[in-house]
Amino acid sequence: AAASAADENLYSDDATWILTSAFIIFTMQSGFGLLESGTVSPKNEVNIMVKNASDVLYGGLAYWMFGYAFSFGESPWSNAFCGLGQFFVDAEEAKMGWVFSKFFFQMSFATTATTIVSGAMAERTKLQAYMAFCVLNTLVFCFPSHWAWDNKGWLNKMGYVDVGGAGPVHLVGGVCSLMAMLILGPRHGRWDRDEAPPMGSPTNALLGMFMLWWGWLGFNCGSTFGITGGKWKLAARSAVSTITASMGGGIVAVVLSYVTKNQKFDISYLINGILGALVGVTGICALAHPWEGLIIGAVGSFVSCVGTEMMVKLRIDDPVGCFPVHGMCSVWAILAVGIFGHVDNLEGVSRYDGLLKGGGFYLLGVQTLGTVTFISWASIMSFILLKGIDKTIGLRVSLEEELIGADICEHGVGSPDDSPPPEFIEASGK
Amino acid sequence: AAASAADENLYSDDATWILTSAFIIFTMQSGFGLLESGTVSPKNEVNIMVKNASDVLYGGLAYWMFGYAFSFGESPWSNAFCGLGQFFVDAEEAKMGWVFSKFFFQMSFATTATTIVSGAMAERTKLQAYMAFCVLNTLVFCFPSHWAWDNKGWLNKMGYVDVGGAGPVHLVGGVCSLMAMLILGPRHGRWDRDEAPPMGSPTNALLGMFMLWWGWLGFNCGSTFGITGGKWKLAARSAVSTITASMGGGIVAVVLSYVTKNQKFDISYLINGILGALVGVTGICALAHPWEGLIIGAVGSFVSCVGTEMMVKLRIDDPVGCFPVHGMCSVWAILAVGIFGHVDNLEGVSRYDGLLKGGGFYLLGVQTLGTVTFISWASIMSFILLKGIDKTIGLRVSLEEELIGADICEHGVGSPDDSPPPEFIEASGK
Amino acid sequence: AAASAADENLYSDDATWILTSAFIIFTMQSGFGLLESGTVSPKNEVNIMVKNASDVLYGGLAYWMFGYAFSFGESPWSNAFCGLGQFFVDAEEAKMGWVFSKFFFQMSFATTATTIVSGAMAERTKLQAYMAFCVLNTLVFCFPSHWAWDNKGWLNKMGYVDVGGAGPVHLVGGVCSLMAMLILGPRHGRWDRDEAPPMGSPTNALLGMFMLWWGWLGFNCGSTFGITGGKWKLAARSAVSTITASMGGGIVAVVLSYVTKNQKFDISYLINGILGALVGVTGICALAHPWEGLIIGAVGSFVSCVGTEMMVKLRIDDPVGCFPVHGMCSVWAILAVGIFGHVDNLEGVSRYDGLLKGGGFYLLGVQTLGTVTFISWASIMSFILLKGIDKTIGLRVSLEEELIGADICEHGVGSPDDSPPPEFIEASGK
Repeated sequence: AAASAADENLYSDDATWILTSAFIIFTMQSGFGLLESGTVSPKNEVNIMVKNASDVLYGGLAYWMFGYAFSFGESPWSNAFCGLGQFFVDAEEAKMGWVFSKFFFQMSFATTATTIVSGAMAERTKLQAYMAFCVLNTLVFCFPSHWAWDNKGWLNKMGYVDVGGAGPVHLVGGVCSLMAMLILGPRHGRWDRDEAPPMGSPTNALLGMFMLWWGWLGFNCGSTFGITGGKWKLAARSAVSTITASMGGGIVAVVLSYVTKNQKFDISYLINGILGALVGVTGICALAHPWEGLIIGAVGSFVSCVGTEMMVKLRIDDPVGCFPVHGMCSVWAILAVGIFGHVDNLEGVSRYDGLLKGGGFYLLGVQTLGTVTFISWASIMSFILLKGIDKTIGLRVSLEEELIGADICEHGVGSPDDSPPPEFIEASGK
Repeated sequence: AAASAADENLYSDDATWILTSAFIIFTMQSGFGLLESGTVSPKNEVNIMVKNASDVLYGGLAYWMFGYAFSFGESPWSNAFCGLGQFFVDAEEAKMGWVFSKFFFQMSFATTATTIVSGAMAERTKLQAYMAFCVLNTLVFCFPSHWAWDNKGWLNKMGYVDVGGAGPVHLVGGVCSLMAMLILGPRHGRWDRDEAPPMGSPTNALLGMFMLWWGWLGFNCGSTFGITGGKWKLAARSAVSTITASMGGGIVAVVLSYVTKNQKFDISYLINGILGALVGVTGICALAHPWEGLIIGAVGSFVSCVGTEMMVKLRIDDPVGCFPVHGMCSVWAILAVGIFGHVDNLEGVSRYDGLLKGGGFYLLGVQTLGTVTFISWASIMSFILLKGIDKTIGLRVSLEEELIGADICEHGVGSPDDSPPPEFIEASGK
Repeated sequence: AAASAADENLYSDDATWILTSAFIIFTMQSGFGLLESGTVSPKNEVNIMVKNASDVLYGGLAYWMFGYAFSFGESPWSNAFCGLGQFFVDAEEAKMGWVFSKFFFQMSFATTATTIVSGAMAERTKLQAYMAFCVLNTLVFCFPSHWAWDNKGWLNKMGYVDVGGAGPVHLVGGVCSLMAMLILGPRHGRWDRDEAPPMGSPTNALLGMFMLWWGWLGFNCGSTFGITGGKWKLAARSAVSTITASMGGGIVAVVLSYVTKNQKFDISYLINGILGALVGVTGICALAHPWEGLIIGAVGSFVSCVGTEMMVKLRIDDPVGCFPVHGMCSVWAILAVGIFGHVDNLEGVSRYDGLLKGGGFYLLGVQTLGTVTFISWASIMSFILLKGIDKTIGLRVSLEEELIGADICEHGVGSPDDSPPPEFIEASGK
């Protein structure tokens, strides 16, 4: 979403690229849904798919009503802190081409940021509460995206670079996830045993990972916001660095699992390693050489896999690994721009050189400032919003509903085999 | 498929858009297959996937042989009622670019129209009969698509507007579905109980819905038939109105289910609500403001959910909700153009204003005429064709085969657990 | 990948096409994974998905390190036998647009060639051995792709035509598959019964087939390597001939199954028939008239279905039908160019006419030479590499692990129901 400089020259070829990319990005909703559905226990596999639909329904509506306005609104009142204008997005015929393309593309990012949190809250959150969260989370997302990407955004003006949204999408989503886990507490009985509950359907989880993998290519390549001028060259570089990152990440995850898990190839490691690598390269994708992508992905995967173990040690229950993958790896992603980034002569994606390219600590400093800002903002905002939902609607389902599972309780579907025997419910409910 | 005016200027950029959109539309076959497969009982989940493949195999062949000829054939004999020429579609090198692009795109629509009916006939139709139907149904589809979209089509000449095919695809498909249900009768024992049999795999059904959701973007955006001139602006507006429609539809479905279903979130409501909304916006997509899309989608979803309950009341067995979603919502879709439509200065998509845009009742009248025509045509034609198949091949499987399931009977696959115990078959077969 | 002539004129529009096509091609990895996962027994369904991820991870890394260099490296030392240069692919800003687009696209082909073999080795191969194979198989693939597609390649210079990669991708992949089956031997107990073990999940297998079907459109249409000049016309023709081929293939498979399988519609026949047809049209797609596509696909399907029966007769255990689909049908695909091919005036895809177009036996002779060359090369190379892996890492899992299944043994996942009872393991292990 290195959108700013390109807006004026946007025309039909660019719009095609943006729209096609947005379609591909929306397929990531299927991927997230399937990954989460395959990872949780079978008694919640349908409910989590519905939550992923809610991201688009409620999150999308909120982004249309006010999210885009605060992110990219172009009235004279828009400023360094937020955009203003274009609430309930609409446009005249003359302008609608680029307004609608940009809105549609940015909305695909906004709904992705919310999707991330659905995994963190899995298996113990009320659907009504999650729907309210989808609306409110747009408030958490839209200001950071203004700071990072809008021409008037204060981070953007300082030279902050974040091509595919490591900060506004993944770091904000990851921090909200962590806050949600802390407020919700662990699933009932999670820490009675050390190892994670078995995946409901590892095959579905892996298929979801595949869908995310290819969807990420749309995510990172579409973020050049077009193909005219030098943008197609940046898109091609994004494609390559994204795929080399996934290679580095997947291989590190396989080796880590083999070494630490008694020569087994852990499915969670593979999934979180590849996704952590993809998050890791998201910030710099259009600027990274293939070998840089490989290294950045390898580090991202390491962070993700070690982070997953850390969460267990810290007794924070993260059913699908949201925080390590999106929260921790996005910090790496943002800092990696400060290390490997360089001045971009094609489209001005970056105006400064990173640490290893002779630019000293300026860019790394700006990126660090961005990181600290996003973490602070997202943790405060999500704390307020989630506590507010908890006090009103209530975030967590009852113990009985948690034990029976959301599929039966909230949707009336699911085979009786999935539900625990009555005596277990009774015993646990004491 | 607002093709007519654009044909002459079609060139490489437009072809790219059309071909890319057609690829995305073909993924809807996966979506329909999975949605239907997850909705029916497990003993028929494989068979329904095969039926969805048959749509492309037999329906595609028929469309190549004669469907395109009757829809868009360009010989001097083509007239207001039908095209003629280009049977067994082929083209010289000089002309093949646009002939093949258009044919490929239109074929993706033709096979979709047939796919709709596969759900209506699920769990009780012989595969051979369905294969014959795929060929013959092309006859039902191709004339309406001529009337609506071809330069010489009589409805097109009157000013009928139907951007994404609400009439030829969804209304025709929906009416054929209803006719098939009436001729086939309900599944054995369906009305012995009030509530629908449980979905075989709600997760697969939801994944299918996701696939259709994103595929619909290709469907509606590709229907601008290119990106040159003002077409990219219309495509961008289509994307936004399609997604706002789905948001309105999904939210209405969630609320309806919560209110009427004892605070449960019914999966069928969600699926049929979102799909009904998408059908609802199909006719007007390129012309609708985002807020209009939202309203149109909300109404579509309401029609779809209430329609589903009506079908139960009327004791018409519609296993996956084909008629409410495609039949009823497409009537709303066509009329919505007459209400919200407006003169399009970019590409002449509409030459008249709708009721709310000061155009009076003319456009609404033409749209109503289209609706009545499509319903009459599709019901008469499908009655003749389905009765013909019933008298020769036979539409319905034997009771024993229905009870055992098509997966075992027609394909020799499926676990024995899925089949009912022998005594049940005996008892039922009396 | 009719790349050669087009390289110089490549620009942004072409790059968009190539990148979009490559995204679509990568979705084929999901398709292959799901098809194989649904076909094998449930105790190996996760493991085969991991193997499909390994194709991209290890095969992609190898292609980046040396595969592209040997295929398309452009140093002065590159020659008729191999390219040289651009190891560890990277590029300057001025050149990176086309280098990265081409590399990304070609890598999607390289990883597909390896994916094919994963099915052949299913249910009895060590994951570590397969990972090593992914790296080494790049060596088998990259030289044939140089001969067929690079400007300097000796087959290319002779006039060899292979638009979508029937030779380098499918024939090489198919022959490696056969070699792997012969070296590995059959699954334990496979030939104790005549009929194939039941598919673990026919629904997943069919969904995988659907994904491959649409992905193939990206494969064949993207192989025009752009849309400028006459390339968009060739892409449109590719789309149509690819879909007519699948229609011909699917219908032949349905009829064959109906006639020979006691009026049952065999799922394997349908899948292998459609895929065999798609392989069959891969070589000629951009040059074939729609009716030629139909015939070529029908023959491909026949070859594939009869070939599958032959493999059973020959007692070669091919769990997912790799050799008939990819090996046998690709021979047909390459020869079909020599029969139906013609001089291409648009982009010089072919410089000679085929047998039926009055060109005599020259083109057919060149295509036959290509076939013989690919078979010889792939069988010798894969024999050496697979034997090397067998002697060092060991290709085959232990009998106990094979009986328990790779999901539990290598990944620690899978329900206990999937594993055979201990007494069976004991008995078999004697």
